[in-house]
Amino acid sequence: MDEIRLSGEKTLVVASGRAHPELAEEIAAELGTELLPMSAYDFANGELYVRSSESVRGKDVFLLQSHPYPLNNWLMEQLIMVDSMKRASAKRITVVSPFYPYARQDKKGRGREPISARLVADLYKTAGADRIMSVDLHTAQIQGFFDGPVDHLFAVPLLADYIREQVADDEVTVVSPDTGRVRVAEQWAERLGGAPLAFVHKSRDLTMPNKAVSKQVVGEIEGRTCVLIDDMIDTGGTISGAVKVLKDAGAKDVIIAATHAVFSEPAAERLAACGAREVVVTNTLPIPDEKRFEQLTVLSIAPTLARAIKEVFADGSVTSLFDGHA
Amino acid sequence: MDEIRLSGEKTLVVASGRAHPELAEEIAAELGTELLPMSAYDFANGELYVRSSESVRGKDVFLLQSHPYPLNNWLMEQLIMVDSMKRASAKRITVVSPFYPYARQDKKGRGREPISARLVADLYKTAGADRIMSVDLHTAQIQGFFDGPVDHLFAVPLLADYIREQVADDEVTVVSPDTGRVRVAEQWAERLGGAPLAFVHKSRDLTMPNKAVSKQVVGEIEGRTCVLIDDMIDTGGTISGAVKVLKDAGAKDVIIAATHAVFSEPAAERLAACGAREVVVTNTLPIPDEKRFEQLTVLSIAPTLARAIKEVFADGSVTSLFDGHA
Amino acid sequence: MDEIRLSGEKTLVVASGRAHPELAEEIAAELGTELLPMSAYDFANGELYVRSSESVRGKDVFLLQSHPYPLNNWLMEQLIMVDSMKRASAKRITVVSPFYPYARQDKKGRGREPISARLVADLYKTAGADRIMSVDLHTAQIQGFFDGPVDHLFAVPLLADYIREQVADDEVTVVSPDTGRVRVAEQWAERLGGAPLAFVHKSRDLTMPNKAVSKQVVGEIEGRTCVLIDDMIDTGGTISGAVKVLKDAGAKDVIIAATHAVFSEPAAERLAACGAREVVVTNTLPIPDEKRFEQLTVLSIAPTLARAIKEVFADGSVTSLFDGHA
Amino acid sequence: MDEIRLSGEKTLVVASGRAHPELAEEIAAELGTELLPMSAYDFANGELYVRSSESVRGKDVFLLQSHPYPLNNWLMEQLIMVDSMKRASAKRITVVSPFYPYARQDKKGRGREPISARLVADLYKTAGADRIMSVDLHTAQIQGFFDGPVDHLFAVPLLADYIREQVADDEVTVVSPDTGRVRVAEQWAERLGGAPLAFVHKSRDLTMPNKAVSKQVVGEIEGRTCVLIDDMIDTGGTISGAVKVLKDAGAKDVIIAATHAVFSEPAAERLAACGAREVVVTNTLPIPDEKRFEQLTVLSIAPTLARAIKEVFADGSVTSLFDGHA
Amino acid sequence: MDEIRLSGEKTLVVASGRAHPELAEEIAAELGTELLPMSAYDFANGELYVRSSESVRGKDVFLLQSHPYPLNNWLMEQLIMVDSMKRASAKRITVVSPFYPYARQDKKGRGREPISARLVADLYKTAGADRIMSVDLHTAQIQGFFDGPVDHLFAVPLLADYIREQVADDEVTVVSPDTGRVRVAEQWAERLGGAPLAFVHKSRDLTMPNKAVSKQVVGEIEGRTCVLIDDMIDTGGTISGAVKVLKDAGAKDVIIAATHAVFSEPAAERLAACGAREVVVTNTLPIPDEKRFEQLTVLSIAPTLARAIKEVFADGSVTSLFDGHA
Amino acid sequence: MDEIRLSGEKTLVVASGRAHPELAEEIAAELGTELLPMSAYDFANGELYVRSSESVRGKDVFLLQSHPYPLNNWLMEQLIMVDSMKRASAKRITVVSPFYPYARQDKKGRGREPISARLVADLYKTAGADRIMSVDLHTAQIQGFFDGPVDHLFAVPLLADYIREQVADDEVTVVSPDTGRVRVAEQWAERLGGAPLAFVHKSRDLTMPNKAVSKQVVGEIEGRTCVLIDDMIDTGGTISGAVKVLKDAGAKDVIIAATHAVFSEPAAERLAACGAREVVVTNTLPIPDEKRFEQLTVLSIAPTLARAIKEVFADGSVTSLFDGHA
Repeated sequence: MDEIRLSGEKTLVVASGRAHPELAEEIAAELGTELLPMSAYDFANGELYVRSSESVRGKDVFLLQSHPYPLNNWLMEQLIMVDSMKRASAKRITVVSPFYPYARQDKKGRGREPISARLVADLYKTAGADRIMSVDLHTAQIQGFFDGPVDHLFAVPLLADYIREQVADDEVTVVSPDTGRVRVAEQWAERLGGAPLAFVHKSRDLTMPNKAVSKQVVGEIEGRTCVLIDDMIDTGGTISGAVKVLKDAGAKDVIIAATHAVFSEPAAERLAACGAREVVVTNTLPIPDEKRFEQLTVLSIAPTLARAIKEVFADGSVTSLFDGHA
Repeated sequence: MDEIRLSGEKTLVVASGRAHPELAEEIAAELGTELLPMSAYDFANGELYVRSSESVRGKDVFLLQSHPYPLNNWLMEQLIMVDSMKRASAKRITVVSPFYPYARQDKKGRGREPISARLVADLYKTAGADRIMSVDLHTAQIQGFFDGPVDHLFAVPLLADYIREQVADDEVTVVSPDTGRVRVAEQWAERLGGAPLAFVHKSRDLTMPNKAVSKQVVGEIEGRTCVLIDDMIDTGGTISGAVKVLKDAGAKDVIIAATHAVFSEPAAERLAACGAREVVVTNTLPIPDEKRFEQLTVLSIAPTLARAIKEVFADGSVTSLFDGHA
Repeated sequence: MDEIRLSGEKTLVVASGRAHPELAEEIAAELGTELLPMSAYDFANGELYVRSSESVRGKDVFLLQSHPYPLNNWLMEQLIMVDSMKRASAKRITVVSPFYPYARQDKKGRGREPISARLVADLYKTAGADRIMSVDLHTAQIQGFFDGPVDHLFAVPLLADYIREQVADDEVTVVSPDTGRVRVAEQWAERLGGAPLAFVHKSRDLTMPNKAVSKQVVGEIEGRTCVLIDDMIDTGGTISGAVKVLKDAGAKDVIIAATHAVFSEPAAERLAACGAREVVVTNTLPIPDEKRFEQLTVLSIAPTLARAIKEVFADGSVTSLFDGHA
Repeated sequence: MDEIRLSGEKTLVVASGRAHPELAEEIAAELGTELLPMSAYDFANGELYVRSSESVRGKDVFLLQSHPYPLNNWLMEQLIMVDSMKRASAKRITVVSPFYPYARQDKKGRGREPISARLVADLYKTAGADRIMSVDLHTAQIQGFFDGPVDHLFAVPLLADYIREQVADDEVTVVSPDTGRVRVAEQWAERLGGAPLAFVHKSRDLTMPNKAVSKQVVGEIEGRTCVLIDDMIDTGGTISGAVKVLKDAGAKDVIIAATHAVFSEPAAERLAACGAREVVVTNTLPIPDEKRFEQLTVLSIAPTLARAIKEVFADGSVTSLFDGHA
Repeated sequence: MDEIRLSGEKTLVVASGRAHPELAEEIAAELGTELLPMSAYDFANGELYVRSSESVRGKDVFLLQSHPYPLNNWLMEQLIMVDSMKRASAKRITVVSPFYPYARQDKKGRGREPISARLVADLYKTAGADRIMSVDLHTAQIQGFFDGPVDHLFAVPLLADYIREQVADDEVTVVSPDTGRVRVAEQWAERLGGAPLAFVHKSRDLTMPNKAVSKQVVGEIEGRTCVLIDDMIDTGGTISGAVKVLKDAGAKDVIIAATHAVFSEPAAERLAACGAREVVVTNTLPIPDEKRFEQLTVLSIAPTLARAIKEVFADGSVTSLFDGHA
Repeated sequence: MDEIRLSGEKTLVVASGRAHPELAEEIAAELGTELLPMSAYDFANGELYVRSSESVRGKDVFLLQSHPYPLNNWLMEQLIMVDSMKRASAKRITVVSPFYPYARQDKKGRGREPISARLVADLYKTAGADRIMSVDLHTAQIQGFFDGPVDHLFAVPLLADYIREQVADDEVTVVSPDTGRVRVAEQWAERLGGAPLAFVHKSRDLTMPNKAVSKQVVGEIEGRTCVLIDDMIDTGGTISGAVKVLKDAGAKDVIIAATHAVFSEPAAERLAACGAREVVVTNTLPIPDEKRFEQLTVLSIAPTLARAIKEVFADGSVTSLFDGHA
């Protein structure tokens, strides 16, 4: 006999960077496990140190990191964690980045621009990531930037179900804040039981050639509850401007729904003051208390991520979860 | 003395696959050179054989291939040509694919779909391509699929200049055939001296819930000459339907403008009969006589490609050529 | 507790491209399973779309494609299928290509030639293939073109067993149709119980310097049943010429045996008329009815492939299957 | 004629990130050129955008970035710049990182630690860097982390020449602040005309087993001017402690010499108060005014870097510059 | 049903090159298994041939090779073995190289030097190694040369435990033979219960400028048993010289302890005659009888390697084994 | 002005390993240059050290190594040299290996065999080689093992021209020593003015079933001068056996012609005694005096290699040199 046999077994481990520990805790709780204990600290010059306190040898690691400000720091922390787990012989490393860093820089709009979203995919690969899990990528083409499986999750079911509890379907109109999101608005409309569609866009008055561009609404919104949708809210300028246009055009109410609450200054003030009845977002990014306001509702993305992690781990069939708009 | 010195010199060579020799000849003529002589033939079972009849050692090769039907054949021919030139020590190989193959399959719309546009970029890389040159990619994100420089050229200046010769600027409205191209229509509008914008979109009549979706025009088109734009025309169904909608809605005239004339059956018949005053395309794909019709105008992309090739060869600054919409 | 455990299990899936569904069905039947349901269709311009209708997440996929005319199409379909399965998280992807595409172009015979067989191996790798399974490679060196395991199967046992049922061992002589296959003929001879060996070769008559080359037989064939062997029959010119030479030289009977029935025009006519008593081939390539003729016998390679798949899946020891001549 | 010829010419371009523009300006001035104009700005959530305002097509780019706090930000900016230049067809990209990021994390001291210095080398490679230039790497083995040429420059000649102007050779003793730098101290000693060597180390008093570790000096320092050397000064704790030990042991004077002035809090205060006659560093990292103090002397590394850049560009022989201690 | 399921199981196999079969046998015995039977022979021109006589398909292979003289031969044999196992579908290949080849050439000390230790890591990777296991690397940074997990084992516990049986802790002083190993000596001192530390170093007598360099001892050694440590003993010149210095300085006894007994000529004679009471080494390299001498003690590294192999195979937590000094 | 320009120039450098300095000197002399001065020495345990004494920065390096016994040593020396030149910024590195190492192990003849010839190609690539130049590869498919250009030179013109000086064309018959080289013999025959062809092969006498295999000649050799050809002569057993068979069968004279004189024991004795009139080889491998014998003629391959190097350096067209049989 020249062999030693051992029956196989797979072990799932959830680890987290330091950007958004609450989300990681929630995911672990959903999965009925605990987070991998990690040591992590910063050198005074900004260098980071991370190390798992327990073995990850042969394990199936899901490594969560959120990417709020300072994003480059959290990205680098995540890359270093991946490196350490690769060298510690993790069996598979899935990078869970609910808000994909640099998703907006996904093409060369002009000569000599970087394609930072591709660079990020390559950096993950280089560090040792085997797959990526993310929520509502800015454009679905980003999946093609990574040379391996990408689990592209959608927050629309979570957001839409919540909104259906608040408003009757037949009062709702789905509104895109610009011409670039009309396709996504159509997908929302379908999930809201065939709601009508509208959008805000810029228009030039031909009779007044030197007049500046003004914003107009296209679609039936008068007397209706508008669900104004977007993938992310950064400083909130465009979206709060759109609320005003909708109100001026006779909308009864406006509910803003977005997946990623980047909330850079002065998003919170703008959103609080813009006249929207409610602003519904998820916690793909941490939202500190000082950025919260009365009309804000934060839904947890943790159950969605936990379910996806469980199914990836079990090699399950997750068609309902991963398929959908894009 | 233990060295031998030689002063440097760069040599440009243009080679072509067999899919669209006319375009290759035009480009060579624009550059004041001749095509690299190639031997190419097909084995009876479909295998291809290609070989340059002259040395490409140390040369800067631009390898043109167009991708009409049967596209997989032309793609494979191009890959084999790249392989042969890599092994023959070409200094740099630029794949010139005016119509990027599989550009439409650029994301995983549903689970288990391929991302064929990324696969094509990887196949070019594997065969030995150093860079890619293409015209009007279906989405600009495809640039990020290739791990190297991509020269993304635009046909809009060529098409728009022609149209300005036909119609007065103040009669024109730029129209997108669906909601997904409105951004591109905005860019056209700017190049046409600030022309107004419109688009065709699907709308549901709320008062008649079981009624099928109908198409509507948004924007000022009554009595105007509509320039209906798209990146490619495949079977022509959507675009010819849009012409009818525009005419019904009071458009004076419709001119269709598109970069890639795929013209799968029955595009020619549809376009000839749809009521458009003119259909303007480029020759990124060959258009055989049987697919030509009275209203068709074909502009040559050869000068655009030749200029880009010359500037890439000379390491020139090609901002005006490569920058622009996307 | 910070881990979740799951006991391991491996799942085998057989998928197939559209080039030769019968062979795939046979293999699945041999394995007691069914083919993975796939959606596949062609765009009018030749682009292909494929997608598995069921999950392959975590599974051990064997992806069969045969490569008859139009070969580039089937190759591209196979690459796209591999890409889709890589992105759908298949655990391992084995490309099963019974007839390896471009196997004949396996070296640079002249300057500037491609090495297409290496290119094909690299394309498989790039798309995401982990291993390759093939039957009777044109040269065994092709195994070295792929950077990973290659299962090189042999059809000789299948073909030789059949022939031993038809003819007594002591009546048989194994004949190579040219000088390049004499080594293979030796291996056949051993499997046929030490049969004598002969071959056809070109010879120049020294006394008549301007005379064209003629073909001669070397070896004892008079009054014997010649088994004329080759790896593939393309247009059938060489092999049917060899039959005539053998007959003229006194052979009692000729049986042609070849693995890959490429059967490009006019192979069927030639073989039917060449005087061979029987033409024995396998179904590594589909043979449509119009290419079948009276003397043709087609043996199924499915049991051989099914057995190899089963053993690769089970990590079994397949020495008897994979070892042998080459 | 099927070729176009162009005589070769190489063009050097110096670009800089935003971490230390003064150093970049100095280098450009030394080279008689100007910095490549760049657009760079920060999104509110920390994402960075960079773009060269001029073409770099075909040019030999040297891309300087310094890595003070917040280091991850500057590293990411540098990676994005490399990506943009790769995609803009720069001919060669040399990353000039005078202070190599994460140099201290160059091995797995304990299980599950990352090797961040290797990760950084791989990130540079992934982004598109062809070579790396750096000054006084923490350990010379870091050169082996990059799969390509690394120009490892030394600041010792610069620092030592300055010190020889201040103190007579025969008064000097070179001192290492711990046992790990004694080899480097030996190299300093040679450059200072064979100065004697000493070092500070921890020692346990055997007669008092529970007594804490104390520091001792080894070597002849009484009445001498000690040059206390190190590669970097971070918070300054170790090095200022060593000054005290040397003074207590009878040193006449102490001059601290280090290449990289990381100067994390409270380095400036500590160094100002530690009793050293002078602290000599280079400007591989920017030293803001609030971190400067009376005894500080900052020598410019710009001439050293400029000379190396010039020689790399010219493919010159730079033995004297790159060789030396390690 | 379109799937076939199989429950998982892992199989460990230990294979060995021909450099040090005794060590391999010992490891197999520790693991309760037998070595994989291999065929290996040399062609007359020095080419090697190796082939496993049994299947390794799907197995977890640990491939031991020791690297005594002629080292390049054994390295090449190991690479060829890895290649053969990769192509034979081993599931994972761990290269076990107790003495890492070319570990001393781990940096570019001077311009144009190779970094052979990195090259060796890359060669292992290229051949198909998934991970490396080694003992007491010359510098810990070598771990970063391999792009994958490296199990860095330490012989200090083995050596130190043995020494504690020979000498009372309070009689021992740990001595480094030069300034470059003082850090390692500190780690030894800790494991020997806080033993005092000393080292031998070169010193220049300032009062006699033209006098050659002499060696001195630093630390308390008079009347004590010195444990003189090193990672490897090659020709033994430095270490036997150090013994003399220690003896001259009053040491009561000297015990030499080193991990790798390279023992190039004339190491055995030197060590036998140098006055050391005992020379303790491990069998990471074979020590033929003619290189053994009276004072030599060889401890087996087999239990250490076997334990590490078992834990890597079982994905166990091996903190105690892999952590430690470096 | 933000650029510095420099006109381009290429510099050729020839470097050599220590296996066959005479050949390197000859090549350098042919090129009118001198060999790059190198430092190279062996550590006692077999480790090698190499370093160029002059800069190779930006140069086009041709790195010759021959591969006689001990081949693994010379191969490793070559890899280390390539590594050092890559790190020293050579512009391009061409490995010149006249006798390709491990060329015979170019396929998996049996399960679990390595494909060492592919491994060697990968090792060259990993070390940093950009291209390979070799003479008369054992099989031409080896070209496909390297992912880059391979210059495959042929010694037949050199050998054949010499033989035509010795013997009249109409007296010559070209003979292959076994069935595997008949194709090559045909190519020789063409170059010798259409000489007739013959070969030696094994045959079984059917009437005596238990009789051992005997060797026979096929073709017209009686009274003729046989040129017995092969790519390499190792121990000389097969080829000297063939001489006897030819003589017995009535050949007037036998001249042996082979490219690579491996000449393992007892090749020299066998060849001297076998009855061949002359043994013509090239110096792709060094032939020490003790392996030379009266009938041996050694032709220098240096002019062939020098011409190829010159043309590769100049990016010249080398069709006549590289094309030909294979």
